[in-house]
Amino acid sequence: MPDIRALLWPNAVAVVGATNDQSKLRGRTFSVMRGHPFAGPVYPIARREAEVAGLKAYPAIADVPQQVDLAVLIIPAEHVPAELERCGKAGVKAAHIITSGFAEETGERGRELQAELRRVQERYDMAVCGPNSQGFVNTRTALCPTFSPSMALRERPLISTTREGGRIAVLAQSGGVGFAFFDRGDAKGLPFSYVVTTGNEACLESFDIVDFMLDEGETDVFILFVESIKNPETFRRVADKAARAGKPIIFTKIGQSDAGRRSAASHTGSLAGSYSAYRAMFDHYGLIEGRDMDEMIDIAAAFSCNMRRLPKGRRVCIVSGSGGGAGWIADACAGAGLEVPELDRPTRDVIDAYLPAYGTSQNPVDGTAQAIRTLGYARLAELASRSPIIDGVVVVTTARSAHSYEPEKELLFEVARECPKPLVMWTYTLPVASSIALLSDAGYPLYTDLQNCARAMAAMADYGAFLERYRSGDGPSPVAEAARAAARAELSAAGPLLSEVTARRVLTHYGIGGREGGVLVTTPEAAVAEARGLGGPVVLKVQSPDILHKTEAGGVAVGLEGDDAVAAAYARILASAQRHAPAARIEGVLVQPMAAAGLEMIVGVSRDELFGPLLMVGLGGIHVEVLKDVAFAPVPLTPAAAERLVRVLRAAPLLDGVRGAPAADVPAVVDILVRLSHFAADNADLVSEIDLNPVRVHASGQGATVLDALIAKR
Amino acid sequence: MPDIRALLWPNAVAVVGATNDQSKLRGRTFSVMRGHPFAGPVYPIARREAEVAGLKAYPAIADVPQQVDLAVLIIPAEHVPAELERCGKAGVKAAHIITSGFAEETGERGRELQAELRRVQERYDMAVCGPNSQGFVNTRTALCPTFSPSMALRERPLISTTREGGRIAVLAQSGGVGFAFFDRGDAKGLPFSYVVTTGNEACLESFDIVDFMLDEGETDVFILFVESIKNPETFRRVADKAARAGKPIIFTKIGQSDAGRRSAASHTGSLAGSYSAYRAMFDHYGLIEGRDMDEMIDIAAAFSCNMRRLPKGRRVCIVSGSGGGAGWIADACAGAGLEVPELDRPTRDVIDAYLPAYGTSQNPVDGTAQAIRTLGYARLAELASRSPIIDGVVVVTTARSAHSYEPEKELLFEVARECPKPLVMWTYTLPVASSIALLSDAGYPLYTDLQNCARAMAAMADYGAFLERYRSGDGPSPVAEAARAAARAELSAAGPLLSEVTARRVLTHYGIGGREGGVLVTTPEAAVAEARGLGGPVVLKVQSPDILHKTEAGGVAVGLEGDDAVAAAYARILASAQRHAPAARIEGVLVQPMAAAGLEMIVGVSRDELFGPLLMVGLGGIHVEVLKDVAFAPVPLTPAAAERLVRVLRAAPLLDGVRGAPAADVPAVVDILVRLSHFAADNADLVSEIDLNPVRVHASGQGATVLDALIAKR
Repeated sequence: MPDIRALLWPNAVAVVGATNDQSKLRGRTFSVMRGHPFAGPVYPIARREAEVAGLKAYPAIADVPQQVDLAVLIIPAEHVPAELERCGKAGVKAAHIITSGFAEETGERGRELQAELRRVQERYDMAVCGPNSQGFVNTRTALCPTFSPSMALRERPLISTTREGGRIAVLAQSGGVGFAFFDRGDAKGLPFSYVVTTGNEACLESFDIVDFMLDEGETDVFILFVESIKNPETFRRVADKAARAGKPIIFTKIGQSDAGRRSAASHTGSLAGSYSAYRAMFDHYGLIEGRDMDEMIDIAAAFSCNMRRLPKGRRVCIVSGSGGGAGWIADACAGAGLEVPELDRPTRDVIDAYLPAYGTSQNPVDGTAQAIRTLGYARLAELASRSPIIDGVVVVTTARSAHSYEPEKELLFEVARECPKPLVMWTYTLPVASSIALLSDAGYPLYTDLQNCARAMAAMADYGAFLERYRSGDGPSPVAEAARAAARAELSAAGPLLSEVTARRVLTHYGIGGREGGVLVTTPEAAVAEARGLGGPVVLKVQSPDILHKTEAGGVAVGLEGDDAVAAAYARILASAQRHAPAARIEGVLVQPMAAAGLEMIVGVSRDELFGPLLMVGLGGIHVEVLKDVAFAPVPLTPAAAERLVRVLRAAPLLDGVRGAPAADVPAVVDILVRLSHFAADNADLVSEIDLNPVRVHASGQGATVLDALIAKR
Repeated sequence: MPDIRALLWPNAVAVVGATNDQSKLRGRTFSVMRGHPFAGPVYPIARREAEVAGLKAYPAIADVPQQVDLAVLIIPAEHVPAELERCGKAGVKAAHIITSGFAEETGERGRELQAELRRVQERYDMAVCGPNSQGFVNTRTALCPTFSPSMALRERPLISTTREGGRIAVLAQSGGVGFAFFDRGDAKGLPFSYVVTTGNEACLESFDIVDFMLDEGETDVFILFVESIKNPETFRRVADKAARAGKPIIFTKIGQSDAGRRSAASHTGSLAGSYSAYRAMFDHYGLIEGRDMDEMIDIAAAFSCNMRRLPKGRRVCIVSGSGGGAGWIADACAGAGLEVPELDRPTRDVIDAYLPAYGTSQNPVDGTAQAIRTLGYARLAELASRSPIIDGVVVVTTARSAHSYEPEKELLFEVARECPKPLVMWTYTLPVASSIALLSDAGYPLYTDLQNCARAMAAMADYGAFLERYRSGDGPSPVAEAARAAARAELSAAGPLLSEVTARRVLTHYGIGGREGGVLVTTPEAAVAEARGLGGPVVLKVQSPDILHKTEAGGVAVGLEGDDAVAAAYARILASAQRHAPAARIEGVLVQPMAAAGLEMIVGVSRDELFGPLLMVGLGGIHVEVLKDVAFAPVPLTPAAAERLVRVLRAAPLLDGVRGAPAADVPAVVDILVRLSHFAADNADLVSEIDLNPVRVHASGQGATVLDALIAKR
């Protein structure tokens, strides 16, 4: 296992390529590093210079008089693999490669160099970050091997707030973007633990580093900017670990659009993958998707200050000294899916005692400028937070001058420390640095963007609900071991395409489908006998592993009543199927009862290139095909997650029964989803695609009928 | 007509309530005013002070030695009406009332005072702004009657950029919000013409002032923050004038949510109105809805710099020195509805000549840091803008230091001046003031928020398309004068609820419906005869102005064939209707042919409290009722606008024919929408509600059948 501690917390650092020449990146990197009080020894490795920035330089890593944990490499790409080899030999445990000119370049040479680099890394099991990066920062050791202008010429310490905890780590493939996150968050007084720019991620990828940081426990919030996920297993394991630790990951993955994908591919030479699969994974692991840098920073700020007190629900109180601003943010909160309920009478009575005639306590609480002067923001927020119908408080303020906060400074700190409900602040004026510093030290996230403010509060509520759901656990498989083995054996034995009858047989082991599956017959007489046994109209369907679309092959007849009709249909669909596909192997004809009425849904499994099987659900008819109203999730799924998946469909209200239709048996379709998700998870190596299309969901309590089934193997 | 020029460009100003006491708003207002070099005389009106801030004070407005255009009132609310009266007598033409304590207060007294104030204003026909406001600013005369901290202690001139034109006016009911817009835009180097905070809008409302500014012609972009629109006629007239002038209005109307409405109502004592009606009006007049202060400022910035060259389409090129950032903004552009096409070969060849191996010209153009150094942003943007498949250019930059722009400074100015396509910039790093100043002077809107950057470009494209659509004109009414008069006469004569047969008769004059309307009969024999005449299955429907829901009354029979069936149904539905509503006046029974198959839509007119009749359209069945997929527009509508309305429905793809269904006859439904919109507009005073539900839209070329019609009068 590569030692990431050696990368981020080295005993000593060698900088290969260090120079006094400030016109070069390697010169700037060395001087940026030296501008921070990193306590460990730093060794410049330079061929032509005896001394760099006053430090003795060594011609080669082997000449350094001590074991060095970390080497920072800023030398031309073609020399990197050999130099990394020398580092490995010298006992260096980790390397950060800043140099560009690897897989991000067009042409083969860069890719080859990157492959070479990876071979050396594997040989020495080094923790290697980069190449094509801007380096990293560990704020607590003041270690800054980077040429980022963000780290040059700083006058403040790397953590500028006095507030404890709530530290944020940034991991970004793009160096510019990674340090820009720091810049923006730092300007807002947020505490960062690390900024790591990972470039091409030839060896370590962001999630490996998050893994280390989760174990380390010093980081509370993660901001990730990712062009591609290389290893889905690492992603799953680390995302799961973060969820169990209750540490949010605020995430952007570029490549939603064709142009974004082109850019990701050209930038770091990797594939970008399907975005709906990414979305499904984010949702499953509670990752918070960000759309803009400031928005991500703003969400991180909310968690950074309120980790210990995530909202228990979505009901917020807005307290303000400005009516117009309060109304606007009330709209924004509603738009973000929060509730802004009228306050309860007892809370209003308490607040009203402080308000002038033109104030109002209903919610938004327009305290008016006068009440803010006499009562203060902290006290007003605290009064509102005591309401039993409120889960969090949004304070509308004007941070244009820190002056107005001075009289209530102590109370601001106290309320931020003691309040059991989350607090956020939005300033409609532009805040001055002294206001930012005061409020940040006290522990209030201060927003200038009201949509971000509302979204941050909503993100906390969502995340709180996610944690509860996630931690309630996956539960055991609903399918017994023996049944699972039987299904797997049959699936393994089958050909590449399983006809309906075979697919049903396999799925029956997982409790999907039942009597409705019908009976396979191979003579018209048997068909007639089966139809009689079922009593009532029947469906006949030709079965063949070579016929994918039975209906198009004329291989289906529905609503058949009476011996003659059944016998005639049997002959007709067989003839039709043979005409349609003369070489098809015909297994026989399936005789099924006609299903009762219900709402048609489509349930399926598709396979993402990167993440493997994804469960899919949508309503039948126009909803999936035309309106693209479909939801995906990774497998397996808990019943709660399956129900949630159904409920995110835009058409979900149809399940509640409309226009005289009865409410649909949602638990029945949830049961099918859960069982199918386990089947897909257990047989992820074998399954390419599953279609249960349609599944007819009957009235509440009447179950659901799988009307057709198809499995395609990999 | 109140003289708004006297308000904004007064010859002289009296400040009633001026004082030397800086602890009071009136003291601060006077000193803020005096801190700016307004050239006209300023007269403090003060009872107890002989001199204010070194100026001779007058005990009353009548004592001032000259005619004064503008009085600024900052005295207790109860004295305001009498003082305004004194001003009127003294020949003052305009007043800005800063004082609070009017309709925004709970209780009757404030409302009464506001009504009094309005009576005085009407008596003297003064231009009165406020009360309950923070005053205003005219940047060009440096007139700043306001206590806003934004205007205190400024070191820069009120317009800090050297760029000409593209001036922005802010009009806001909330004083805090209004000046916060200025603060934020000023920090981004944007030129403002005015900031006017209008408070309760007891007399003048924002759109009156916009009207003046449009005539004046010195403002190019408007930012409005509105709690309610008082006068829909003014709104329509001014919004129309702005559209014809091609001057965008960026708009926020609070009160989308219940809590927002509560806040708006409590703040300025006015009703908030229905939000879907507001949305329909915004869309009709091309108003650009803003969700956040910075977003609105950012959209204004795009127009301010690119007014002369709105994009002709939605295709953007992204040029960048940072791959990661470029990919991200490409995704944001796609998300905002822009296209980021691969560049054409000739343009790529030109650009490729300048790029290193790890750059790419496909789009995003990742010029790499190296190409930016040698080529510069301006030149790269200019090369990209020359592509025939590109309508605008997004430049990704790092404005952390202005240093890198220095070598290409002249070219930056030249390209911004000469380029025929719009240019915007996004900086992933936080910009320094010198970068902002340079780029703002050159004429580039500089964004820190990538979503806003993409949205601003999209807003320009939308607005360009809107202008083209809007200016193509309304066209004449599709209905002849005589037919309109006949419809109106019949509608006037009808009772409050028009049964289907009556409603159809009225609408037939507008060319809506025809033979499908059927014939009214009053005997079973006549019903049979009519059914025979129609030849084919028929529908019978009882007709009564007292029965709103015929089906629920058992008053409808469908699919009737043969004399006996028709006669029996006639008797049955009459009996059923009489049982259901014994007192109902029965007009008879309508005999209609069964309509051909088609897609069912709902077309209607509803009445908004504020804006009057709104046309409504949606698909039938679940789409309107359950999925709430419905679109509104003010009346009348052009065919192009009606088609657009249909196309914004989420379910619109269904009209193109799916799952074997033929494409629907969209022109036929558009024709009905246009005609109905004219009917509603022509009879806005009479109509409360119209329902054509359903309208069955047949296959392309086969028309549409109105299956039922209902009109309710006001």
